[in-house]
Amino acid sequence: MDDRTEIKDLGEFELIAKITEGIKLKQTTSLVGVGDDAAVLDSGSASAEAPERIVVTTDMLCEGVHFDLTYAPLKHLGYKAVVVNLSDVCAMNATPTQITVGLGISNRFSVEAVEELYSGIHLACERYGVDLIGGDTTSSPSGLTLAITALGRAPADSITLRQGADESDLLVVSGELGSAYMGLQVLEREKHVFKEAPGAQPELTGYDELLERQLKPEARVDVVKELAQLQVIPKAMIDISDGLASESLHLAAAAKKGVRIYEDKIPMNEKMYETAREFNLDPTLCALSGGEDYELLFVVAQSQFESLQNHPMFSIIGHFTGDPEDRTLVLRNGGEAELKAQGWDSVA
Amino acid sequence: MDDRTEIKDLGEFELIAKITEGIKLKQTTSLVGVGDDAAVLDSGSASAEAPERIVVTTDMLCEGVHFDLTYAPLKHLGYKAVVVNLSDVCAMNATPTQITVGLGISNRFSVEAVEELYSGIHLACERYGVDLIGGDTTSSPSGLTLAITALGRAPADSITLRQGADESDLLVVSGELGSAYMGLQVLEREKHVFKEAPGAQPELTGYDELLERQLKPEARVDVVKELAQLQVIPKAMIDISDGLASESLHLAAAAKKGVRIYEDKIPMNEKMYETAREFNLDPTLCALSGGEDYELLFVVAQSQFESLQNHPMFSIIGHFTGDPEDRTLVLRNGGEAELKAQGWDSVA
Repeated sequence: MDDRTEIKDLGEFELIAKITEGIKLKQTTSLVGVGDDAAVLDSGSASAEAPERIVVTTDMLCEGVHFDLTYAPLKHLGYKAVVVNLSDVCAMNATPTQITVGLGISNRFSVEAVEELYSGIHLACERYGVDLIGGDTTSSPSGLTLAITALGRAPADSITLRQGADESDLLVVSGELGSAYMGLQVLEREKHVFKEAPGAQPELTGYDELLERQLKPEARVDVVKELAQLQVIPKAMIDISDGLASESLHLAAAAKKGVRIYEDKIPMNEKMYETAREFNLDPTLCALSGGEDYELLFVVAQSQFESLQNHPMFSIIGHFTGDPEDRTLVLRNGGEAELKAQGWDSVA
Repeated sequence: MDDRTEIKDLGEFELIAKITEGIKLKQTTSLVGVGDDAAVLDSGSASAEAPERIVVTTDMLCEGVHFDLTYAPLKHLGYKAVVVNLSDVCAMNATPTQITVGLGISNRFSVEAVEELYSGIHLACERYGVDLIGGDTTSSPSGLTLAITALGRAPADSITLRQGADESDLLVVSGELGSAYMGLQVLEREKHVFKEAPGAQPELTGYDELLERQLKPEARVDVVKELAQLQVIPKAMIDISDGLASESLHLAAAAKKGVRIYEDKIPMNEKMYETAREFNLDPTLCALSGGEDYELLFVVAQSQFESLQNHPMFSIIGHFTGDPEDRTLVLRNGGEAELKAQGWDSVA
């Protein structure tokens, strides 16, 4: 080829923009296509009293890129691969119902290894009441690749897209942030120690909570249920896979609004805080940029403040503003910093 | 691990049986799970006048296993990867509506290469009126992996599973068989010639039809439409990806019936026949075991004979029998041979 552009020079988002450019949805059942956490389809129940939507999402996980089998046991990998997809379904405010699993696997893996991987997949299906309805298992020249597609359902009026935030709407997050990232740091440290001295016993005790957040995350189906109970339909929602900062900016950009997050409101777990200190990392930075928390980040009108304010599941961490250039982290000391997809830069 | 069983020793079908063993569908919307060409979901339109089903199918394609980029141009690969999935939708007697695409790609590929691949994907979507509604693009340590999930719709009473053949039902196939396989032989020969003498021009002229069947197959959505027009709902259906023999045995096994195929009824194209002779291959064997034809193979009651008998789209090639051990190819010379998943053994 005459002109060769490297994918890394263009970047993932630009590449996706390029290959999905100009797509026009032709099927009447295709309501939302590429660009959100999941696609939205009309279930065809238009004539029914309570129209329902079907959401569909696909994720691809490659060995050596998304996971490292030195420290991720195959069973955990199977579990996590499912959960990551279910989390995308939850981000649409929908309930996961089915998955399909595509597996490409080299002859490095035994039948027992595949069974181990599937035991994790089945466990996740069991845990979430989701059906494994199909898939494809094939040999690959090297490594392991998992492609999971998840489907879910929601009442038509409950579906939440990324876009929808208005000025002065509240930004709310479930659970606690940064723990999955700190779990990864602990694992990386032990992998390093093990490489230096293969006989050494891993020092993982005391970090169980963080390790579990990294190796066996959960999808917040309980949050979707709780929101329905509270009769709160978020105006927009996304799940936190890349980190709080990056996802908040997605919500702001989709709505062409600004966003302000208050450092002292970001929910952090004590163990994660301590461990960050132990690793000489800034806990706030871990929470903002760590990723893989799979918590739900959503937008509600100020009128919902009362419903969510003292709810143990939720933290109101910021709000949207009218200025799309406004991407601010309000620091504990009252100063301000610019919120960036990867961390933040102090401006004060 | 103490016990290590190699996947190749167990075989693909056994492995799938192992990992899908004991799956129980829990969601009320999951109607058919693992084991057919696609899963079948209730669209949720139960209360509507004409209930509709949604079918879902996933395929995984790995470089070096399912395709060889030495002779499959990326655009054709993208096209074919979509078509193969749409063919599975057609095998359920459903009309394809949406796809998602998971792509794992190494840095060996440029942005231009990815665009080339997607131009084929978009072309197939365009050709079949199918929407690309989502996906995931990610880097992989080596090679190219494509995971496509296709969705389709059909009236509830039109869905065709693999199981359903009764004694004395007819076996019918669309189009012509063996051409895709012969196209592959031509490409393999040229690849070999090219390796021996890199300067040589490929000798591909005159084989266009066979090459197109191999590189740019089509999904028989027109057959699904025609069957609806004829008001023929097959009792069972499958698409021919592995070869006529293998797929016929699948239909027979699913129904616990026997099957007899008449050699002189198998539809073969003249060019494929000639080329098989040129390669010293048995044309019947190519048609039986070649695979990748993506024609539809289906079962109808004898009462449908009139509707299909002289239809240019279809060939009635055999029938089912009550004896599950009966797997017979009735030869041109009146002799009989045992039908095997890979070809057939002469018994007379």
